[in-house]
Amino acid sequence: MRQIICLRVVSSLLKSTMRSHTFFDSLGSASIMAKILDGKGLAKDIRNELKIKIHNWVLQGHRAPSLKCVIVGDDPASHTYVKNKIQAAIDVGIEAETIRYEANLTEEELLMAIDGLNANSEVDGILIQLPLPGGIDERKVCNAVAPEKDVDGFHIVNVGQLCLDMPTIVPATALAVVEMLKRFKIETFGRNAVVVGRSKNVGMPIAMMLHSDMSHDSGLGMDATVTICHRYTPKEKLDFYCRNADIIITATGVPKLIKADMVKPGATVIDVGIVRVTGEDGKTRLVGDVDYDVPGGVGPMTVAMLMHNTFQAAQRQRDNDQQ
Amino acid sequence: MRQIICLRVVSSLLKSTMRSHTFFDSLGSASIMAKILDGKGLAKDIRNELKIKIHNWVLQGHRAPSLKCVIVGDDPASHTYVKNKIQAAIDVGIEAETIRYEANLTEEELLMAIDGLNANSEVDGILIQLPLPGGIDERKVCNAVAPEKDVDGFHIVNVGQLCLDMPTIVPATALAVVEMLKRFKIETFGRNAVVVGRSKNVGMPIAMMLHSDMSHDSGLGMDATVTICHRYTPKEKLDFYCRNADIIITATGVPKLIKADMVKPGATVIDVGIVRVTGEDGKTRLVGDVDYDVPGGVGPMTVAMLMHNTFQAAQRQRDNDQQ
Repeated sequence: MRQIICLRVVSSLLKSTMRSHTFFDSLGSASIMAKILDGKGLAKDIRNELKIKIHNWVLQGHRAPSLKCVIVGDDPASHTYVKNKIQAAIDVGIEAETIRYEANLTEEELLMAIDGLNANSEVDGILIQLPLPGGIDERKVCNAVAPEKDVDGFHIVNVGQLCLDMPTIVPATALAVVEMLKRFKIETFGRNAVVVGRSKNVGMPIAMMLHSDMSHDSGLGMDATVTICHRYTPKEKLDFYCRNADIIITATGVPKLIKADMVKPGATVIDVGIVRVTGEDGKTRLVGDVDYDVPGGVGPMTVAMLMHNTFQAAQRQRDNDQQ
Repeated sequence: MRQIICLRVVSSLLKSTMRSHTFFDSLGSASIMAKILDGKGLAKDIRNELKIKIHNWVLQGHRAPSLKCVIVGDDPASHTYVKNKIQAAIDVGIEAETIRYEANLTEEELLMAIDGLNANSEVDGILIQLPLPGGIDERKVCNAVAPEKDVDGFHIVNVGQLCLDMPTIVPATALAVVEMLKRFKIETFGRNAVVVGRSKNVGMPIAMMLHSDMSHDSGLGMDATVTICHRYTPKEKLDFYCRNADIIITATGVPKLIKADMVKPGATVIDVGIVRVTGEDGKTRLVGDVDYDVPGGVGPMTVAMLMHNTFQAAQRQRDNDQQ
């Protein structure tokens, strides 16, 4: 019975194979082939796999994994994000609940609420939606979540474990990128990778996993030679490193930063950057770092990996309880 | 009085200015200029500065900083290292003591001993000399040292803080390299740096500080574009990245890995790698990663920065006690 279900997942995975796209630079003078990975289809596959795994886990007598999303204030974008995460969680069989607080919540009150969730053995994952209102120290709040329930992977201990190649909870967007490289079988060993952007939740952890040792405990190392570029990398040097890269991961939020003529034929590009811009027609639309319509993108993969992290947190805590 | 002492330090610092060296590739066919930094003189200056700072700190009524070096077993090299550290500590006015255990000490006994040192408010810094005998989990031991007393900077929390650009205790060799770049006024902003070697105590933390944001809290960010090369970087790619680099930090222990023709004129090279090799004459000698006699090297700077870390640990713990 279980084997049949697994086969169904595999065949579904095969459908979302990598697509290659030809794209043109802004002058239309050159055309090159580059692999741009479709996160959307893969995210769907991963969510389907998780759904089956969680279903089996519950059949084995465990309670369903449980996720609490804490949101403070009225930021509409944050409420949309949380709503999407809750829906994704419920879809895969995670019990998910939003805990809403008014914007005037104090840091102390928030820390007390987190303590309560940490102490509650019925809660496996805790997600604090960022940004928090001014006056609340986000780093303090991230460190207040018990590391084993920190499904965002933002706690200092989880960051430390990641950087030491130890098994840990990895920030979902960074994990999404690594998962895409693995699922699409992009060779990383000894290859040249460029990470554009050095944010602590995306660029930095991606660079850590890309360069580190494949044989280590985390299973996340990729043995690539990695160049970290950022806002102070001169334009001509960014061009230089990108043109030399087999893999480009870009996560800057600078619209159309990576042009077609910066990407060598056959290179793999993952565009994590996304920003809302207003066009000449007055309409707003989402634009990536890559000057080309990237299919899908990393967004849906991030949500899928957050669900992966929540299930992983539930499993680890159950394992620890049984020891 | 104090001002005069400071001036003396400054003038002493001026004497150990950077030297430029001409070196030749193995064929003698090309000569290039590269800056190779002399750590030895700088280490002496830093120890002199520390001596004065600690002297003033004690004059202010604080007890002298206190360091405990724990060594397990009979490894002669480890005993030499510890002896040098203790001597350096005493020279700058740190009260330092070696705690020796037989090689048959169990992990549990070692963890209990560390707990005792953690709880002792008269102890500011704890150093566990590595490697530990087989059967003792080094990572567990590193994480058992209270983060605020972890003068090696190996605790997960200290690693996490470093990678998040937060003030922390930085592994001494990595800090030595950054301090050398700063003291010798090597421009890093927007420059191309290559770190050869990805060890968790040296290469990784150096790459973290080199690429990260100068304006962040740690004060250690250097805003360079950083390429991390390692054992699986193909030889021709290592050449490629090194030739493009303004700064090369090498920490592999592979003798003579970096040849003269891989270094562009005017580039800065810091050679952290050191390994004992046996020559054709049967004699052993120390050889670096760079195929050239590097003056001084990073070793003495590592010891000096360990003393810096110990004094910093003492100051922070006193500050915390007073809060």
